[in-house]
Amino acid sequence: MISEKMKPLVNNNSAIRAMFEEGNKLRAQYGAENVFDFSLGNPNVPAPEEVKEAIIDLVTNEDPVILHGYMSNAGFEDVRQAVAESLNRRFDTKFAAKNIIMTVGAASGLNVILKTILNPGEEVIVFAPYFLEYGSYIRNYDGVLVEITPDTSTFQPNLAEFEEKITANTRAVIVNTPHNPTGVVYSEETIKKLAAILEAKQKEFGTVIYLISDEPYRELAYDGVEVPYLTKYYDNTVVGYSYSKSLSLPGERIGYLVIPDEVDGSDEVITAASIANRVNGSVNAPSLIQKVIGKCVDCQVNLDYYDRNRTTLYEGLTKVGLKCIKPEGAFYLFVKSPVPDEKEFVKAGKKYNILMVPGSSFACPGYVRLAYCVSYETIVNSLPAFEKLMDEYK
Amino acid sequence: MISEKMKPLVNNNSAIRAMFEEGNKLRAQYGAENVFDFSLGNPNVPAPEEVKEAIIDLVTNEDPVILHGYMSNAGFEDVRQAVAESLNRRFDTKFAAKNIIMTVGAASGLNVILKTILNPGEEVIVFAPYFLEYGSYIRNYDGVLVEITPDTSTFQPNLAEFEEKITANTRAVIVNTPHNPTGVVYSEETIKKLAAILEAKQKEFGTVIYLISDEPYRELAYDGVEVPYLTKYYDNTVVGYSYSKSLSLPGERIGYLVIPDEVDGSDEVITAASIANRVNGSVNAPSLIQKVIGKCVDCQVNLDYYDRNRTTLYEGLTKVGLKCIKPEGAFYLFVKSPVPDEKEFVKAGKKYNILMVPGSSFACPGYVRLAYCVSYETIVNSLPAFEKLMDEYK
Repeated sequence: MISEKMKPLVNNNSAIRAMFEEGNKLRAQYGAENVFDFSLGNPNVPAPEEVKEAIIDLVTNEDPVILHGYMSNAGFEDVRQAVAESLNRRFDTKFAAKNIIMTVGAASGLNVILKTILNPGEEVIVFAPYFLEYGSYIRNYDGVLVEITPDTSTFQPNLAEFEEKITANTRAVIVNTPHNPTGVVYSEETIKKLAAILEAKQKEFGTVIYLISDEPYRELAYDGVEVPYLTKYYDNTVVGYSYSKSLSLPGERIGYLVIPDEVDGSDEVITAASIANRVNGSVNAPSLIQKVIGKCVDCQVNLDYYDRNRTTLYEGLTKVGLKCIKPEGAFYLFVKSPVPDEKEFVKAGKKYNILMVPGSSFACPGYVRLAYCVSYETIVNSLPAFEKLMDEYK
Repeated sequence: MISEKMKPLVNNNSAIRAMFEEGNKLRAQYGAENVFDFSLGNPNVPAPEEVKEAIIDLVTNEDPVILHGYMSNAGFEDVRQAVAESLNRRFDTKFAAKNIIMTVGAASGLNVILKTILNPGEEVIVFAPYFLEYGSYIRNYDGVLVEITPDTSTFQPNLAEFEEKITANTRAVIVNTPHNPTGVVYSEETIKKLAAILEAKQKEFGTVIYLISDEPYRELAYDGVEVPYLTKYYDNTVVGYSYSKSLSLPGERIGYLVIPDEVDGSDEVITAASIANRVNGSVNAPSLIQKVIGKCVDCQVNLDYYDRNRTTLYEGLTKVGLKCIKPEGAFYLFVKSPVPDEKEFVKAGKKYNILMVPGSSFACPGYVRLAYCVSYETIVNSLPAFEKLMDEYK
């Protein structure tokens, strides 16, 4: 009954569902506090108090016809201006309101920009490991996903292979930094090299190649690491942002696209993206939450909580002999499986009530992802379980 | 720089923009109170007070991690249950929570169901006049729009032509009642005939034809008219709903799909629609507003306001010699142009600061649409202007 395109998605979904149901079964059997569920990237730190205050202020003092009403498909002008100014303050950029398009989260933002620029059969490059959903977004517009194999020594992008795989048919490249699932932040050196390759290939093929920077984890960076702002390194950069993590509002579906003036055909791309926002069915980002963003544009959640989890879990796992790059951002550890087939390791973990996601789900087998956006107690209580698990591999 | 599919949309957009800018120019020149802008279907009655109370209650008393957090892609279970129960109470249906998928408004709901069922090249039938954006939604999935010419005597659907145009390749039919732009409510008799035709054609071709009922105006019905609930007349009916009008929340992007158990392959369609909701980038309907719906599921805006506008404008226009069907629902009048080329009439109206939308924008030339979701004063003050305008045609 369903369309051909939806069939593989439905089949794949049953695997995710099975994993979720297995977690529920364990929780029912052993009690939620005895199950160490590192499988979900769902923020557990509450939204900052300012969000609540902003909501109450807005519904109390604003005209409901405007607050809950339609606006331009690109979003409220004042909110877009506030976002632009915040970016300019923090990253020394020169954006105006018109460069910002408010979107229904970053997932919708990525769909909007792909719909805007992608023709059937055109290629979009992604670096493994990567969020597999990128593939669904690309196929929504009949694009072709081109995968670059991971450099597992650093999890910085494999630029040699990248350079080889760019063709005259390459329309876009998606990067994600801070990175899901590795927690790596792309260094300025990496980004400069990546930009130089793109510049050269644009010239070689006489094409425009968009660099799409998916940045839901931008503010989740630790140890004072800098997360370079990509529009400053390469003109044809479009940024997709989400407040899901920085303000712990994932269910609210609020984010934005940045389409700088430097982008080739910027005006046309901005107009088309606003229309794509409308015709994909979003119409506009949710209005009340847009206005909340206007008021809370420089707020953020308590990062110390994630940072303590990061350090505790990293040190605990290292101590029992597991290996991973110490993440500088996001809220994931990407851990090398002690056996080549990481699905076996994931299965073994369940015996100790440890739930992890196999790296195959990010096109990077041999690793597992642990999301440490859980309670500190879960981290601490899980460490003896990891010790027992690792005893099996001695 | 933009994709081939976006190009016609961008070109078409400039016409809408030109109209909007013309309105702004008139407002700047003559003052907003002297411009009679009937061009926008934007609710001007505020959301009911209960919405504000629900928002304050929720942000004050609920755990923000849940209130603003991810939930199942189909929506919060308790909200879906509340919606199902409300429908069952009002329409004597038998929906469960699983039959309801919360969506980013009705526009997103239509996109979700079309993505779920439509293969490239399959046909979707619409009845003129219709909301032209349906065409964009259908083309998003490479479907083919098939248009039925209007029955201008009643603006009930032209069922004779409908029957002829159904083919083995017909995948869906979209209906919209109460209707934009005519305000007509499809009678029970019409719906029974339409259902019988669909049943017969399904049998003839051995196919499944989905009836998609786009119902953002369901609660905007006057004179005690009944708006039949379509799932009760035809098994393969999917309902797309929005709270944009019933609760005056158009900017919040909140609505739902109903996929009844009676739909062919219901379980698979429900699963696929939830996934389509995710991969189209919505992920889920905005979380706080979902919870508001759970609390305000039986609330509605003050209909008397629209009803007074409807009566006053209808009577005023009739008096100066304009002809239209008295609408029983929505907030539009679809008025016969006194000259065959309605664009000429729209142009003439501007001389008197009257802004109307040509029927061509709804695939029905020779008519103009007036949205009466404006202030009562605008209606009253516009009547002398209409009188002057009509003097030109005596």
